[in-house]
Amino acid sequence: MSDWSTRFTANMQDYAGYSIGKQLAMINDPDLISLAGGLPSPETFLIEELRQFTEECLSREPSRVMQYSPIRGEPGLMEALIAYLERDSIRVGPENLLITSSGQQGLDLVGRLFLDPGDPLLVERPTFAGALAAFQMQRPAFLGVDLESDGLDLNQLETHLVRGRSRGREPKFLYVVPDFQNPSGITLSLSKRRELLDLCARFEILIIEDSPYRHLRYQGRDLPSLYQLDQEKGGSGVVGVQTFSKLFCPGMRVGFTMGPPEVIEKMTNIKEGNTLNTPKYTQDMCSAFLRQVDLEAFFQRCRVLYSGKLELLQKLLAGFFPPERGLSWTRPEGGMFVWVTGPENLDTSRLLEKALRFKVAFVPGAVCYGAHPDHRHMRLNFSYPAEDQLQEAVKRLSDCLHSQDG
Amino acid sequence: MSDWSTRFTANMQDYAGYSIGKQLAMINDPDLISLAGGLPSPETFLIEELRQFTEECLSREPSRVMQYSPIRGEPGLMEALIAYLERDSIRVGPENLLITSSGQQGLDLVGRLFLDPGDPLLVERPTFAGALAAFQMQRPAFLGVDLESDGLDLNQLETHLVRGRSRGREPKFLYVVPDFQNPSGITLSLSKRRELLDLCARFEILIIEDSPYRHLRYQGRDLPSLYQLDQEKGGSGVVGVQTFSKLFCPGMRVGFTMGPPEVIEKMTNIKEGNTLNTPKYTQDMCSAFLRQVDLEAFFQRCRVLYSGKLELLQKLLAGFFPPERGLSWTRPEGGMFVWVTGPENLDTSRLLEKALRFKVAFVPGAVCYGAHPDHRHMRLNFSYPAEDQLQEAVKRLSDCLHSQDG
Repeated sequence: MSDWSTRFTANMQDYAGYSIGKQLAMINDPDLISLAGGLPSPETFLIEELRQFTEECLSREPSRVMQYSPIRGEPGLMEALIAYLERDSIRVGPENLLITSSGQQGLDLVGRLFLDPGDPLLVERPTFAGALAAFQMQRPAFLGVDLESDGLDLNQLETHLVRGRSRGREPKFLYVVPDFQNPSGITLSLSKRRELLDLCARFEILIIEDSPYRHLRYQGRDLPSLYQLDQEKGGSGVVGVQTFSKLFCPGMRVGFTMGPPEVIEKMTNIKEGNTLNTPKYTQDMCSAFLRQVDLEAFFQRCRVLYSGKLELLQKLLAGFFPPERGLSWTRPEGGMFVWVTGPENLDTSRLLEKALRFKVAFVPGAVCYGAHPDHRHMRLNFSYPAEDQLQEAVKRLSDCLHSQDG
Repeated sequence: MSDWSTRFTANMQDYAGYSIGKQLAMINDPDLISLAGGLPSPETFLIEELRQFTEECLSREPSRVMQYSPIRGEPGLMEALIAYLERDSIRVGPENLLITSSGQQGLDLVGRLFLDPGDPLLVERPTFAGALAAFQMQRPAFLGVDLESDGLDLNQLETHLVRGRSRGREPKFLYVVPDFQNPSGITLSLSKRRELLDLCARFEILIIEDSPYRHLRYQGRDLPSLYQLDQEKGGSGVVGVQTFSKLFCPGMRVGFTMGPPEVIEKMTNIKEGNTLNTPKYTQDMCSAFLRQVDLEAFFQRCRVLYSGKLELLQKLLAGFFPPERGLSWTRPEGGMFVWVTGPENLDTSRLLEKALRFKVAFVPGAVCYGAHPDHRHMRLNFSYPAEDQLQEAVKRLSDCLHSQDG
């Protein structure tokens, strides 16, 4: 068989996968300090609890753990989720829930359900590279909406919506990460949340809300989710894509999508064709996490750990990069990322090649744009590295940029 | 938001998911005896071993179990697979392997990589309904090739290939289950395997080989896989979609795809966008299964159990359905299914509704055709029910058909 690429579909010919995912491979280089991943710190892992949950699960019903299980999800996990979401003032039933292989599968199912090739799709500028990787498989036309310090530029959004309507090419949905956004760390303000919902209701535009870092708030007050606010208004215009990856741990690969029954039903059909059921074991671990762990205490421990690292990173950046070096960065109220902006002429994709020789990695900002990439940003993660590694990483980054300047 | 269905993509508008998957839900009705699933018997589950593997895994590297892991797959599992495949005379390296969420994800990745809407695609008549569910998401044009008692009708296949070439509409691939096929139980003979490879090589048609029941042979001699035969000829025209679901257990949701590096690389890209990594825990369980279990003894135990059930089912069918009742069925040399053929006027999809009232379920044959469904068949599974259940199920089926006749 020769020339495989000519056999691939139109959607896949140029598809290159998930840029950041590839970089996870680097983590095995012991000398490299990576600020590239979105990994939770192993210090937060409830290892003893996982052992105990596992023992209970394998004693209780080992045969069911080894057998096929319901494709929609384990009833026990659905039940635990319904109670968990109530704490967040969200009321759903099993008809509103689909268990997925982490948030990534939820994003893929959303893309596959709503996006035909060429369909317009609204995303934040910048946005989560993994969501782009999911949606790109459908070859949509990305429309970017700039982020301001309090989230989406709603005037720009309205312009897109008005133009789309007048051309009969309305966007299929808006993808938004409202809390401590990946990659920018920016949070959508309460007033903008309300305005956004009104605007999208007026134009009948579906919102996909992705909020993995929601409970990781280090300062300020919790804001209601778009899902909650929409529900309170009696709307059904928000689909929530969620994951246990930051809530509990990424290794289970469990997430869930919540939304109107018609959407959940159709997404379940797609899941039937693409993976069948999620493992019962990994779902049971998440149920036990929700039921048996003191969640508030656990989240508080995570918050203390991560807010300390965020504070350290902010201090390090301020120390190594005084104003004359031309860098600025966000000051997030939570989450896992700080977004650094360099001077106009900085190309962080090129810088990364050099940085790897300095044994430090980050996410070059260009991968966070659906179209018209901006090259002068980088995403720095502070949740995974230990404090001394953070210190060393920023120093290496500074050295690397110095040598760049010289 | 009103009328969701108008928002769905062209590919998904009419997509209904996996017919048999939905029927798995029935298993929870304690009064129903299901011959519908493709479930292994819990008697084959290595429960003590799973406990022990789990304990080892969670003691060795609990943090890695809870963290993200490589998207292509765990290096330890890849290594164990390479050794396992060598026993089957297949030589692969890590560049030929992708770990998937069971065989279903492999099928989905294949469909997504090769099938544009309307693309011709060759499948057996009948074929595995789960593969149809995966491929249907790409809306291809199914071309059926009848099965004879020794597998594919190669003359019919050649006619399709010649016609496709003359029209410039060559099929994207042939999907084939060569061993104890699902649903028919038919095995592709050695001479036909060789002819098939020659034919496909001549027309440069990719073969997707799916062989989940390969080690479950109850009589006759093992036949070399298409992958092996192709490799021995120096070809690269076969992609193998494999699963641990029948080899070890379905609950881990682990499988793998093997093929040319260019194909595996591109499928890995798609996996990056659709699920990221497979859980390390479930992969580690499969590694331990391959490394620590006496596989030959384990397979032999499964063979003794299932061949006894197959023999019983054959006896029951012969007893309840003497020739004048107008049914015939296959006599498979392995696997999990018997394929029953009724008289011309039988519609087994309708019969199923009635059978459910008689508290017995089977897979109506119509779901096993890519196009032009034949309604007079049913697939009976014998691996999952206990022997007394098999007895009762065939009696109920007989009663149901009797009441149908009357």
